[in-house]
Amino acid sequence: MPRINENYLKLKAGYLFPEIGRRVKSFVDAHPEAKVIRLGIGDVTEPLPPACIAAMHAAVDEMANRDTFRGYGPEQGYDFLRQAIVEHDYLERGVNVAADEIFVSDGSKCDTGNILDIFGADNRIAVQDPVYPVYVDTNVMAGHTGPADEQGRFAKLVYLPCTAENNFTPEIPAEKCDIVYLCYPNNPTGAVASLETLTRWVEYAKANNAILFYDAAYEAYVTDPVIPRSIYEIPGARDVAIEFRSFSKNAGFTGTRCAFTVVPKPLMGTTSTGERKEIYPLWMRRHTTKFNGVSYIIQRGAAAAYSDDGKQQIRELVDFYLTNARLLRRGLEDVGLTVYGGVNAPYIWIKTPDGVKSWDFFDQLLDRAHLVGTPGSGFGAAGEGYFRLSAFNSRENIEEAVARLQKVMG
Amino acid sequence: MPRINENYLKLKAGYLFPEIGRRVKSFVDAHPEAKVIRLGIGDVTEPLPPACIAAMHAAVDEMANRDTFRGYGPEQGYDFLRQAIVEHDYLERGVNVAADEIFVSDGSKCDTGNILDIFGADNRIAVQDPVYPVYVDTNVMAGHTGPADEQGRFAKLVYLPCTAENNFTPEIPAEKCDIVYLCYPNNPTGAVASLETLTRWVEYAKANNAILFYDAAYEAYVTDPVIPRSIYEIPGARDVAIEFRSFSKNAGFTGTRCAFTVVPKPLMGTTSTGERKEIYPLWMRRHTTKFNGVSYIIQRGAAAAYSDDGKQQIRELVDFYLTNARLLRRGLEDVGLTVYGGVNAPYIWIKTPDGVKSWDFFDQLLDRAHLVGTPGSGFGAAGEGYFRLSAFNSRENIEEAVARLQKVMG
Repeated sequence: MPRINENYLKLKAGYLFPEIGRRVKSFVDAHPEAKVIRLGIGDVTEPLPPACIAAMHAAVDEMANRDTFRGYGPEQGYDFLRQAIVEHDYLERGVNVAADEIFVSDGSKCDTGNILDIFGADNRIAVQDPVYPVYVDTNVMAGHTGPADEQGRFAKLVYLPCTAENNFTPEIPAEKCDIVYLCYPNNPTGAVASLETLTRWVEYAKANNAILFYDAAYEAYVTDPVIPRSIYEIPGARDVAIEFRSFSKNAGFTGTRCAFTVVPKPLMGTTSTGERKEIYPLWMRRHTTKFNGVSYIIQRGAAAAYSDDGKQQIRELVDFYLTNARLLRRGLEDVGLTVYGGVNAPYIWIKTPDGVKSWDFFDQLLDRAHLVGTPGSGFGAAGEGYFRLSAFNSRENIEEAVARLQKVMG
Repeated sequence: MPRINENYLKLKAGYLFPEIGRRVKSFVDAHPEAKVIRLGIGDVTEPLPPACIAAMHAAVDEMANRDTFRGYGPEQGYDFLRQAIVEHDYLERGVNVAADEIFVSDGSKCDTGNILDIFGADNRIAVQDPVYPVYVDTNVMAGHTGPADEQGRFAKLVYLPCTAENNFTPEIPAEKCDIVYLCYPNNPTGAVASLETLTRWVEYAKANNAILFYDAAYEAYVTDPVIPRSIYEIPGARDVAIEFRSFSKNAGFTGTRCAFTVVPKPLMGTTSTGERKEIYPLWMRRHTTKFNGVSYIIQRGAAAAYSDDGKQQIRELVDFYLTNARLLRRGLEDVGLTVYGGVNAPYIWIKTPDGVKSWDFFDQLLDRAHLVGTPGSGFGAAGEGYFRLSAFNSRENIEEAVARLQKVMG
């Protein structure tokens, strides 16, 4: 009988969001009249930019015609999209990335998990705490951890606590790590990293021969011009960082699916005998062997996000959600809650009042205000006593959510 | 410095199809006037069925409207698609598969690689030889093999030679294997498996507690009613088989990207201490943690493949390619070549004349007839001395290819 991957048995009972789904379903079943507002999952609500819609219609039409039909494309993505990414996401900000360092994919969730395939089992891996659960779970699955303790922390992982005390900016670890996950603007805390903070991380990586996994899925929410939107804005980062980007939260592609990963050619790893090896060809091999490229239709939609119209429409979309975040943040502050994030990020990170546990606050908010958020403890032990609200919703729902919060907590 | 996954260093120099691409490019650069006909990669050439086109246009429009917009969908796929699959691919053939045993994905290449994530490192794994290279390469990457020998066979894998001598139907192994990859209709040989053959495999799996990985990507090409199209047509197969299916070769989705995997709930594996564990929740966890679902637009296109119009259009598409296969096969036979496949499959498997090596035959055919095929040896040691031609092309090109073959080999 086949042996299973026993690392899966170390995983905690359920991924966070399914557990939220179960609790909400149970509440709704018991209170069918309640109008529940969901500010839990970070899922966009507004339609796709018209430029993307037009481009996808055109691409569907191309697939209907023998002369313009597209079969297998390059696994790494079409040049038209990789070039647009290089030009608009990087060159415009003075950052040098080559088109063949871009690997187009169907999601950052996939990419941040799949990237582990090319690394060995003996690396010391650091994550922020609280953290996007996929980073941790995929390391558990890959056998990079021991079992979890009572607080849900897995042995062998290095946790970097992010709390109000350190302004959600963790100390650079004293110990040597091989891989460090960073996510800015941060999910779930909404914190951003300054040029100085990121420079310290790049220096740390250089000093310790570490690689940074930099998740910039929310970079479009950075409106403050002095805050970096790419790790590659830091000199030397090309030698030490892989960057993950997505069309989910800027162009609203959560259900449309397109993302990309940047793997710079200078990145190096090592064999067990100390031989230095390039990371780039390993990822190239992984990506071309285990993936068949993103749908042509979707890549055309993603490329249209970089047209003049597309950029303007995305700016308006992001501004819309940022206004939601501001309204939500102000409403929470008005009732005396201590809140973080929500300025250059779509997430508001609430300190639960009176030290209430995160899941208790979840139940209270659902029960009393019919609002769904995400318990901070679901993102890690250091998230206990915090709670995440997402600004991804209609203006009407955000305003209604604020009104309910003021009614039940005011 | 991070340790790399050293298993990648065991891989052979290049994936087969990129090597073909390099040789063709070099030929075309030297002979820019040559009209090269590509019968190498198994990529479709005809436009998508009108039913799929219409459904995708409608879905794009839904994404343009706030009321019908779709964000994150279920990672396993929308119910409308999973239900359609169950009804049309299985129930219509008297096969019982539950909708929640269907996992919609963006490709069988991904699925056949990713499935290994949930299995352990100590399994004895059998593959047919010749074989779709992805099965082998992903096992190498996962550390399930030793190094390759001079013929390219990896230590620890069990190879099941498929040659003219055994009618491309390998013997059931005498030894106990834990996982057996089967692909029918076969890529690359075009062989099909009878009910009796598959029944023997299911009996083998039951007797040895093995799991069959059944790749049915080409099932639509089976026109002979007595040949099974799903492994689940064999009684008991639900206890021992995972099936991989794709929309690539029936609806022509090679560039559109949609596929699915069936993981029946009765499947069992074991821990190192001999504890029996269900496979289903492991794959559920893998799929929901490391994947975010197929684009809503694409899933609508795939579902339309099961409409009355869609089914008729797909039948016509498949018949078109099967006619190509018949023409190609007859043309090859006319010049005295020994050929296999091409009847219930889109691939023709040629015995190279006079024992010419596969890559030499590739170079000869490219040089003399400007035809691109795939060297049999690229699929495994037992493929040496064979050559694959694909029927995926326009009628005009197929007829021209036959004419050229008759000219240079007649």
